Amino acid sequence: MKFKQINENNFMIRLEIGDNIIESIQKFCKENNVNLGYFHGLGAVGKVELAHYRVDNKKYSSEIIEDALEIVSLHGNITTMDNEIYLHSHIVVSNDKMQAFGGHLKEATINATCEIVLVSLKGNINRFHNEEIGLNLLDL
Amino acid sequence: MKFKQINENNFMIRLEIGDNIIESIQKFCKENNVNLGYFHGLGAVGKVELAHYRVDNKKYSSEIIEDALEIVSLHGNITTMDNEIYLHSHIVVSNDKMQAFGGHLKEATINATCEIVLVSLKGNINRFHNEEIGLNLLDL
Amino acid sequence: MKFKQINENNFMIRLEIGDNIIESIQKFCKENNVNLGYFHGLGAVGKVELAHYRVDNKKYSSEIIEDALEIVSLHGNITTMDNEIYLHSHIVVSNDKMQAFGGHLKEATINATCEIVLVSLKGNINRFHNEEIGLNLLDL
Repeated sequence: MKFKQINENNFMIRLEIGDNIIESIQKFCKENNVNLGYFHGLGAVGKVELAHYRVDNKKYSSEIIEDALEIVSLHGNITTMDNEIYLHSHIVVSNDKMQAFGGHLKEATINATCEIVLVSLKGNINRFHNEEIGLNLLDL
Repeated sequence: MKFKQINENNFMIRLEIGDNIIESIQKFCKENNVNLGYFHGLGAVGKVELAHYRVDNKKYSSEIIEDALEIVSLHGNITTMDNEIYLHSHIVVSNDKMQAFGGHLKEATINATCEIVLVSLKGNINRFHNEEIGLNLLDL
Repeated sequence: MKFKQINENNFMIRLEIGDNIIESIQKFCKENNVNLGYFHGLGAVGKVELAHYRVDNKKYSSEIIEDALEIVSLHGNITTMDNEIYLHSHIVVSNDKMQAFGGHLKEATINATCEIVLVSLKGNINRFHNEEIGLNLLDL
Protein backbone atom coordinates (compact mmCIF):
# COMPACT_ATOMS: atom_id res chain seq x y z
CA MET A 1 0.00 0.00 0.00
CA LYS A 2 1.19 3.48 -0.92
CA PHE A 3 -0.62 6.72 -0.18
CA LYS A 4 -0.34 10.47 -0.47
CA GLN A 5 -2.11 13.07 1.62
CA ILE A 6 -3.51 15.67 -0.76
CA ASN A 7 -4.90 18.09 1.80
CA GLU A 8 -6.29 18.05 5.33
CA ASN A 9 -9.19 15.79 4.35
CA ASN A 10 -8.22 13.92 1.19
CA PHE A 11 -5.92 10.99 0.63
CA MET A 12 -5.12 9.01 -2.50
CA ILE A 13 -4.25 5.38 -1.78
CA ARG A 14 -2.85 2.75 -4.10
CA LEU A 15 -3.14 -0.89 -3.13
CA GLU A 16 -0.67 -3.34 -4.58
CA ILE A 17 -0.80 -6.95 -5.76
CA GLY A 18 -1.72 -9.20 -2.84
CA ASP A 19 -3.09 -6.41 -0.64
CA ASN A 20 -6.50 -7.04 0.92
CA ILE A 21 -8.85 -4.07 0.59
CA ILE A 22 -10.53 -4.05 4.01
CA GLU A 23 -7.39 -5.00 5.91
CA SER A 24 -5.33 -2.34 4.09
CA ILE A 25 -7.78 0.52 4.58
CA GLN A 26 -8.21 -0.46 8.24
CA LYS A 27 -4.43 -0.35 8.69
CA PHE A 28 -4.25 2.97 6.85
CA CYS A 29 -6.94 4.50 9.08
CA LYS A 30 -5.28 3.25 12.25
CA GLU A 31 -1.87 4.56 11.29
CA ASN A 32 -3.19 7.92 10.11
CA ASN A 33 -5.73 8.53 12.87
CA VAL A 34 -8.72 8.46 10.54
CA ASN A 35 -11.73 7.61 12.69
CA LEU A 36 -14.47 8.96 10.46
CA GLY A 37 -14.86 9.30 6.73
CA TYR A 38 -15.63 7.53 3.52
CA PHE A 39 -13.89 6.18 0.44
CA HIS A 40 -14.43 5.29 -3.20
CA GLY A 41 -12.26 3.19 -5.40
CA LEU A 42 -11.65 1.34 -8.61
CA GLY A 43 -9.15 -1.30 -9.64
CA ALA A 44 -8.90 -5.03 -10.13
CA VAL A 45 -9.06 -8.07 -7.85
CA GLY A 46 -8.22 -11.74 -8.27
CA LYS A 47 -10.44 -12.89 -5.43
CA VAL A 48 -13.41 -11.36 -3.67
CA GLU A 49 -15.79 -12.51 -0.95
CA LEU A 50 -19.22 -10.98 -1.41
CA ALA A 51 -21.91 -11.26 1.23
CA HIS A 52 -25.68 -10.90 1.19
CA TYR A 53 -27.75 -10.28 4.31
CA ARG A 54 -31.16 -11.70 5.09
CA VAL A 55 -32.83 -9.77 7.85
CA ASP A 56 -35.45 -12.54 8.34
CA ASN A 57 -32.86 -15.01 9.65
CA LYS A 58 -30.26 -12.36 10.57
CA LYS A 59 -27.56 -14.12 8.59
CA TYR A 60 -25.10 -13.25 5.88
CA SER A 61 -24.60 -15.79 3.10
CA SER A 62 -21.40 -15.31 1.20
CA GLU A 63 -19.70 -16.36 -1.99
CA ILE A 64 -16.03 -16.31 -2.90
CA ILE A 65 -15.27 -15.55 -6.55
CA GLU A 66 -11.76 -16.29 -7.77
CA ASP A 67 -11.37 -14.68 -11.17
CA ALA A 68 -9.81 -11.65 -12.80
CA LEU A 69 -12.42 -9.02 -11.91
CA GLU A 70 -12.62 -5.27 -12.36
CA ILE A 71 -13.72 -3.30 -9.30
CA VAL A 72 -16.40 -1.22 -11.00
CA SER A 73 -17.75 0.35 -7.84
CA LEU A 74 -16.35 0.43 -4.32
CA HIS A 75 -17.87 2.60 -1.64
CA GLY A 76 -17.42 2.44 2.08
CA ASN A 77 -17.68 4.40 5.28
CA ILE A 78 -15.32 4.64 8.24
CA THR A 79 -16.66 4.73 11.78
CA THR A 80 -15.72 3.18 15.11
CA MET A 81 -17.03 0.39 17.33
CA ASP A 82 -15.65 -0.63 20.71
CA ASN A 83 -12.75 1.80 20.19
CA GLU A 84 -11.70 0.10 16.95
CA ILE A 85 -11.89 1.39 13.38
CA TYR A 86 -14.94 -0.15 11.70
CA LEU A 87 -15.25 -0.28 7.91
CA HIS A 88 -18.49 -0.92 6.10
CA SER A 89 -18.08 -1.31 2.38
CA HIS A 90 -20.07 -2.57 -0.58
CA ILE A 91 -18.57 -3.46 -3.93
CA VAL A 92 -19.50 -4.22 -7.54
CA VAL A 93 -17.11 -6.27 -9.66
CA SER A 94 -17.28 -7.37 -13.30
CA ASN A 95 -15.84 -10.33 -15.18
CA ASP A 96 -14.49 -10.66 -18.72
CA LYS A 97 -18.06 -10.85 -20.06
CA MET A 98 -18.64 -7.45 -18.36
CA GLN A 99 -21.30 -9.05 -16.12
CA ALA A 100 -21.62 -7.29 -12.78
CA PHE A 101 -21.78 -8.94 -9.36
CA GLY A 102 -22.13 -7.11 -6.08
CA GLY A 103 -22.53 -7.41 -2.37
CA HIS A 104 -21.30 -6.49 1.05
CA LEU A 105 -17.52 -6.63 0.83
CA LYS A 106 -16.09 -9.15 3.24
CA GLU A 107 -12.63 -9.06 1.70
CA ALA A 108 -10.93 -8.84 -1.67
CA THR A 109 -7.38 -9.34 -2.86
CA ILE A 110 -5.84 -7.00 -5.41
CA ASN A 111 -4.35 -8.64 -8.52
CA ALA A 112 -3.12 -5.51 -10.32
CA THR A 113 -3.87 -2.18 -8.66
CA CYS A 114 -6.58 -0.38 -6.72
CA GLU A 115 -6.96 3.40 -6.54
CA ILE A 116 -8.86 4.78 -3.60
CA VAL A 117 -9.90 8.33 -2.78
CA LEU A 118 -10.39 8.51 0.98
CA VAL A 119 -12.06 11.49 2.64
CA SER A 120 -11.20 11.88 6.32
CA LEU A 121 -13.60 13.83 8.54
CA LYS A 122 -13.09 15.25 12.01
CA GLY A 123 -15.28 13.77 14.69
CA ASN A 124 -16.53 10.40 15.68
CA ILE A 125 -19.48 8.15 14.93
CA ASN A 126 -19.85 4.93 16.84
CA ARG A 127 -21.78 1.77 16.11
CA PHE A 128 -23.92 -0.38 18.37
CA HIS A 129 -25.24 -3.87 17.88
CA ASN A 130 -28.97 -4.03 17.23
CA GLU A 131 -30.34 -7.44 18.25
CA GLU A 132 -33.58 -7.16 16.31
CA ILE A 133 -31.88 -6.40 12.97
CA GLY A 134 -28.74 -8.38 13.74
CA LEU A 135 -26.39 -5.67 12.47
CA ASN A 136 -24.03 -3.06 13.87
CA LEU A 137 -25.86 0.21 13.24
CA LEU A 138 -24.65 3.79 13.19
CA ASP A 139 -25.27 5.51 16.52
CA LEU A 140 -26.60 8.84 15.30
CA MET B 1 -34.37 8.26 9.86
CA LYS B 2 -31.54 9.41 12.09
CA PHE B 3 -28.74 11.75 11.13
CA LYS B 4 -25.71 13.55 12.49
CA GLN B 5 -24.10 16.68 11.09
CA ILE B 6 -20.36 16.03 10.96
CA ASN B 7 -19.26 19.48 9.81
CA GLU B 8 -20.61 22.38 7.77
CA ASN B 9 -20.92 20.26 4.63
CA ASN B 10 -21.13 16.62 5.66
CA PHE B 11 -23.96 14.61 7.15
CA MET B 12 -24.22 10.93 7.98
CA ILE B 13 -27.76 9.59 7.68
CA ARG B 14 -29.16 6.24 8.75
CA LEU B 15 -32.44 5.07 7.29
CA GLU B 16 -34.48 2.58 9.24
CA ILE B 17 -36.72 -0.37 8.37
CA GLY B 18 -39.66 0.83 6.29
CA ASP B 19 -38.09 4.16 5.31
CA ASN B 20 -38.24 5.03 1.63
CA ILE B 21 -34.91 6.32 0.29
CA ILE B 22 -36.05 9.15 -1.98
CA GLU B 23 -38.83 10.31 0.33
CA SER B 24 -36.51 10.28 3.35
CA ILE B 25 -33.65 12.20 1.73
CA GLN B 26 -36.12 14.70 0.31
CA LYS B 27 -37.54 15.25 3.80
CA PHE B 28 -34.04 15.52 5.25
CA CYS B 29 -33.04 18.14 2.69
CA LYS B 30 -36.18 20.17 3.25
CA GLU B 31 -35.83 20.17 7.03
CA ASN B 32 -32.11 20.97 6.94
CA ASN B 33 -32.16 23.55 4.15
CA VAL B 34 -30.03 21.49 1.81
CA ASN B 35 -30.76 22.74 -1.70
CA LEU B 36 -27.64 21.54 -3.46
CA GLY B 37 -25.34 18.59 -2.98
CA TYR B 38 -24.87 14.90 -3.52
CA PHE B 39 -24.99 11.64 -1.62
CA HIS B 40 -23.67 8.09 -1.64
CA GLY B 41 -24.97 5.14 0.28
CA LEU B 42 -25.01 1.48 1.02
CA GLY B 43 -27.43 -0.77 2.86
CA ALA B 44 -30.24 -3.20 2.18
CA VAL B 45 -33.74 -2.95 0.73
CA GLY B 46 -36.74 -5.26 0.60
CA LYS B 47 -38.32 -3.56 -2.38
CA VAL B 48 -37.01 -1.33 -5.11
CA GLU B 49 -38.49 0.24 -8.23
CA LEU B 50 -35.86 0.61 -10.94
CA ALA B 51 -36.50 2.61 -14.08
CA HIS B 52 -34.94 2.68 -17.51
CA TYR B 53 -35.30 5.58 -19.93
CA ARG B 54 -35.67 5.38 -23.68
CA VAL B 55 -34.97 8.70 -25.29
CA ASP B 56 -36.51 7.54 -28.59
CA ASN B 57 -40.00 7.35 -27.11
CA LYS B 58 -39.25 9.65 -24.13
CA LYS B 59 -40.56 7.08 -21.67
CA TYR B 60 -39.35 5.35 -18.56
CA SER B 61 -40.12 1.65 -18.21
CA SER B 62 -39.87 0.40 -14.67
CA GLU B 63 -39.68 -2.79 -12.72
CA ILE B 64 -40.44 -3.45 -9.08
CA ILE B 65 -38.25 -6.07 -7.42
CA GLU B 66 -39.40 -7.40 -4.06
CA ASP B 67 -36.55 -9.38 -2.55
CA ALA B 68 -33.83 -9.04 0.06
CA LEU B 69 -31.32 -6.93 -1.85
CA GLU B 70 -28.04 -5.29 -0.93
CA ILE B 71 -27.65 -1.69 -2.06
CA VAL B 72 -24.24 -2.05 -3.67
CA SER B 73 -24.13 1.43 -5.16
CA LEU B 74 -26.31 4.46 -4.54
CA HIS B 75 -25.42 7.84 -5.92
CA GLY B 76 -27.58 10.88 -6.30
CA ASN B 77 -27.55 14.63 -6.66
CA ILE B 78 -29.65 17.30 -4.98
CA THR B 79 -30.91 20.28 -6.95
CA THR B 80 -34.14 22.28 -7.16
CA MET B 81 -37.03 22.58 -9.60
CA ASP B 82 -40.03 24.89 -9.26
CA ASN B 83 -38.83 25.84 -5.78
CA GLU B 84 -38.89 22.24 -4.59
CA ILE B 85 -35.99 19.94 -3.69
CA TYR B 86 -35.34 17.62 -6.63
CA LEU B 87 -33.42 14.36 -6.18
CA HIS B 88 -31.91 12.41 -9.04
CA SER B 89 -30.49 9.09 -8.01
CA HIS B 90 -29.32 5.86 -9.62
CA ILE B 91 -28.84 2.61 -7.75
CA VAL B 92 -27.32 -0.85 -8.12
CA VAL B 93 -28.69 -3.69 -5.99
CA SER B 94 -27.66 -7.34 -5.70
CA ASN B 95 -29.55 -10.49 -4.77
CA ASP B 96 -28.47 -13.60 -2.86
CA LYS B 97 -26.73 -14.92 -6.00
CA MET B 98 -24.72 -11.66 -5.97
CA GLN B 99 -26.22 -10.72 -9.36
CA ALA B 100 -26.38 -6.97 -9.87
CA PHE B 101 -29.37 -5.00 -11.17
CA GLY B 102 -29.45 -1.28 -11.67
CA GLY B 103 -31.41 1.68 -12.89
CA HIS B 104 -32.85 5.07 -12.18
CA LEU B 105 -34.12 4.90 -8.60
CA LYS B 106 -37.83 5.59 -8.44
CA GLU B 107 -38.15 4.45 -4.85
CA ALA B 108 -36.85 1.78 -2.50
CA THR B 109 -37.84 0.60 0.94
CA ILE B 110 -35.23 -0.23 3.56
CA ASN B 111 -35.46 -3.69 5.14
CA ALA B 112 -32.47 -3.47 7.51
CA THR B 113 -30.43 -0.28 7.38
CA CYS B 114 -29.05 2.25 4.93
CA GLU B 115 -26.02 4.44 5.56
CA ILE B 116 -25.76 7.61 3.54
CA VAL B 117 -23.01 10.20 3.37
CA LEU B 118 -24.59 13.45 2.18
CA VAL B 119 -22.49 16.42 1.09
CA SER B 120 -24.33 19.72 1.25
CA LEU B 121 -23.09 22.59 -0.92
CA LYS B 122 -23.89 26.28 -0.76
CA GLY B 123 -25.68 27.69 -3.77
CA ASN B 124 -28.44 26.65 -6.06
CA ILE B 125 -28.83 24.72 -9.30
CA ASN B 126 -32.23 24.56 -10.91
CA ARG B 127 -33.72 22.18 -13.44
CA PHE B 128 -35.83 22.86 -16.49
CA HIS B 129 -37.92 20.52 -18.60
CA ASN B 130 -36.44 19.79 -22.01
CA GLU B 131 -39.20 18.77 -24.43
CA GLU B 132 -36.90 17.21 -26.99
CA ILE B 133 -35.20 14.86 -24.52
CA GLY B 134 -38.21 14.51 -22.26
CA LEU B 135 -36.21 14.97 -19.06
CA ASN B 136 -35.67 17.62 -16.42
CA LEU B 137 -32.13 18.82 -17.11
CA LEU B 138 -29.66 20.76 -14.99
CA ASP B 139 -29.77 24.47 -15.79
CA LEU B 140 -26.03 25.24 -15.87
CA MET C 1 -21.13 20.15 -22.23
CA LYS C 2 -22.31 22.72 -19.72
CA PHE C 3 -20.91 23.26 -16.26
CA LYS C 4 -21.19 25.43 -13.19
CA GLN C 5 -18.54 26.02 -10.54
CA ILE C 6 -20.26 25.65 -7.17
CA ASN C 7 -17.31 26.57 -4.97
CA GLU C 8 -13.53 26.40 -5.04
CA ASN C 9 -13.53 22.61 -5.26
CA ASN C 10 -16.87 21.50 -6.67
CA PHE C 11 -18.25 21.58 -10.18
CA MET C 12 -21.51 20.29 -11.59
CA ILE C 13 -21.23 19.21 -15.22
CA ARG C 14 -23.95 18.26 -17.67
CA LEU C 15 -23.03 16.30 -20.76
CA GLU C 16 -25.30 16.54 -23.78
CA ILE C 17 -26.44 14.16 -26.50
CA GLY C 18 -23.45 12.99 -28.51
CA ASP C 19 -20.83 14.01 -25.92
CA ASN C 20 -18.23 11.39 -25.06
CA ILE C 21 -17.66 11.05 -21.33
CA ILE C 22 -13.88 10.67 -21.16
CA GLU C 23 -13.18 13.15 -23.94
CA SER C 24 -15.52 15.74 -22.36
CA ILE C 25 -14.15 15.48 -18.83
CA GLN C 26 -10.60 15.60 -20.18
CA LYS C 27 -11.46 18.79 -22.08
CA PHE C 28 -13.16 20.23 -19.01
CA CYS C 29 -10.11 19.54 -16.83
CA LYS C 30 -7.72 21.03 -19.34
CA GLU C 31 -9.76 24.20 -19.80
CA ASN C 32 -10.33 24.66 -16.07
CA ASN C 33 -6.85 23.72 -14.84
CA VAL C 34 -8.04 20.68 -12.91
CA ASN C 35 -5.01 18.41 -12.54
CA LEU C 36 -6.14 16.35 -9.58
CA GLY C 37 -9.51 15.22 -8.31
CA TYR C 38 -12.32 12.77 -8.77
CA PHE C 39 -15.84 12.58 -10.15
CA HIS C 40 -19.10 10.68 -9.88
CA GLY C 41 -21.95 10.66 -12.29
CA LEU C 42 -25.24 9.29 -13.48
CA GLY C 43 -27.11 9.55 -16.75
CA ALA C 44 -27.75 7.57 -19.91
CA VAL C 45 -25.64 6.42 -22.83
CA GLY C 46 -26.39 4.97 -26.26
CA LYS C 47 -23.00 3.36 -26.68
CA VAL C 48 -20.30 2.31 -24.27
CA GLU C 49 -16.97 0.53 -24.60
CA LEU C 50 -16.19 -1.49 -21.49
CA ALA C 51 -12.82 -3.06 -20.90
CA HIS C 52 -11.54 -5.86 -18.70
CA TYR C 53 -7.91 -6.33 -17.76
CA ARG C 54 -6.05 -9.59 -17.40
CA VAL C 55 -2.84 -9.11 -15.49
CA ASP C 56 -1.57 -12.56 -16.62
CA ASN C 57 -1.29 -11.49 -20.26
CA LYS C 58 -1.22 -7.74 -19.53
CA LYS C 59 -4.06 -7.08 -21.95
CA TYR C 60 -7.41 -5.40 -21.91
CA SER C 61 -10.24 -7.13 -23.73
CA SER C 62 -13.12 -4.84 -24.55
CA GLU C 63 -16.71 -4.93 -25.63
CA ILE C 64 -18.80 -2.25 -27.27
CA ILE C 65 -22.47 -2.22 -26.26
CA GLU C 66 -24.83 -0.16 -28.39
CA ASP C 67 -28.12 0.10 -26.57
CA ALA C 68 -30.12 2.53 -24.45
CA LEU C 69 -28.32 2.14 -21.11
CA GLU C 70 -28.60 3.89 -17.77
CA ILE C 71 -25.29 4.92 -16.19
CA VAL C 72 -25.93 3.46 -12.75
CA SER C 73 -22.46 4.10 -11.41
CA LEU C 74 -19.62 6.21 -12.76
CA HIS C 75 -16.54 6.91 -10.72
CA GLY C 76 -13.20 8.19 -11.83
CA ASN C 77 -10.04 9.91 -10.72
CA ILE C 78 -8.05 12.72 -12.31
CA THR C 79 -4.28 12.67 -12.28
CA THR C 80 -1.49 13.48 -14.74
CA MET C 81 0.96 11.53 -16.87
CA ASP C 82 3.65 12.99 -19.12
CA ASN C 83 2.24 16.46 -18.44
CA GLU C 84 -1.19 15.51 -19.72
CA ILE C 85 -4.47 15.09 -17.82
CA TYR C 86 -5.05 11.37 -17.24
CA LEU C 87 -8.51 10.03 -16.41
CA HIS C 88 -9.12 6.61 -14.95
CA SER C 89 -12.77 5.71 -14.72
CA HIS C 90 -14.92 2.64 -14.17
CA ILE C 91 -18.61 2.44 -14.99
CA VAL C 92 -21.69 0.30 -14.42
CA VAL C 93 -24.55 0.50 -16.91
CA SER C 94 -27.95 -1.21 -16.99
CA ASN C 95 -30.26 -2.19 -19.83
CA ASP C 96 -34.08 -2.26 -20.05
CA LYS C 97 -34.13 -5.57 -18.13
CA MET C 98 -32.24 -3.71 -15.37
CA GLN C 99 -29.27 -6.08 -15.81
CA ALA C 100 -25.98 -4.47 -14.85
CA PHE C 101 -22.74 -4.57 -16.85
CA GLY C 102 -19.52 -2.97 -15.82
CA GLY C 103 -15.89 -2.43 -16.61
CA HIS C 104 -13.07 -0.03 -17.17
CA LEU C 105 -14.57 2.84 -19.15
CA LYS C 106 -12.83 3.27 -22.48
CA GLU C 107 -15.45 5.64 -23.83
CA ALA C 108 -19.20 6.20 -23.80
CA THR C 109 -21.54 8.43 -25.77
CA ILE C 110 -24.40 10.23 -24.07
CA ASN C 111 -27.87 9.68 -25.56
CA ALA C 112 -29.91 11.84 -23.17
CA THR C 113 -28.01 13.53 -20.34
CA CYS C 114 -25.22 12.88 -17.87
CA GLU C 115 -24.83 14.68 -14.54
CA ILE C 116 -21.38 14.72 -13.03
CA VAL C 117 -20.16 16.05 -9.70
CA LEU C 118 -16.45 16.78 -10.07
CA VAL C 119 -14.26 17.52 -7.07
CA SER C 120 -11.08 19.41 -7.92
CA LEU C 121 -8.13 19.18 -5.53
CA LYS C 122 -5.01 21.29 -5.31
CA GLY C 123 -1.77 19.48 -5.99
CA ASN C 124 -0.51 16.93 -8.40
CA ILE C 125 -0.28 13.15 -8.63
CA ASN C 126 1.57 11.62 -11.56
CA ARG C 127 1.47 8.17 -13.07
CA PHE C 128 4.27 5.94 -14.25
CA HIS C 129 4.16 2.84 -16.42
CA ASN C 130 4.80 -0.38 -14.55
CA GLU C 131 6.14 -3.03 -16.91
CA GLU C 132 5.42 -5.98 -14.67
CA ILE C 133 1.73 -5.13 -14.21
CA GLY C 134 1.33 -3.50 -17.60
CA LEU C 135 -0.59 -0.52 -16.25
CA ASN C 136 0.00 3.16 -15.53
CA LEU C 137 0.09 3.31 -11.75
CA LEU C 138 -0.27 6.21 -9.33
CA ASP C 139 3.12 7.54 -8.27
CA LEU C 140 2.51 7.98 -4.53
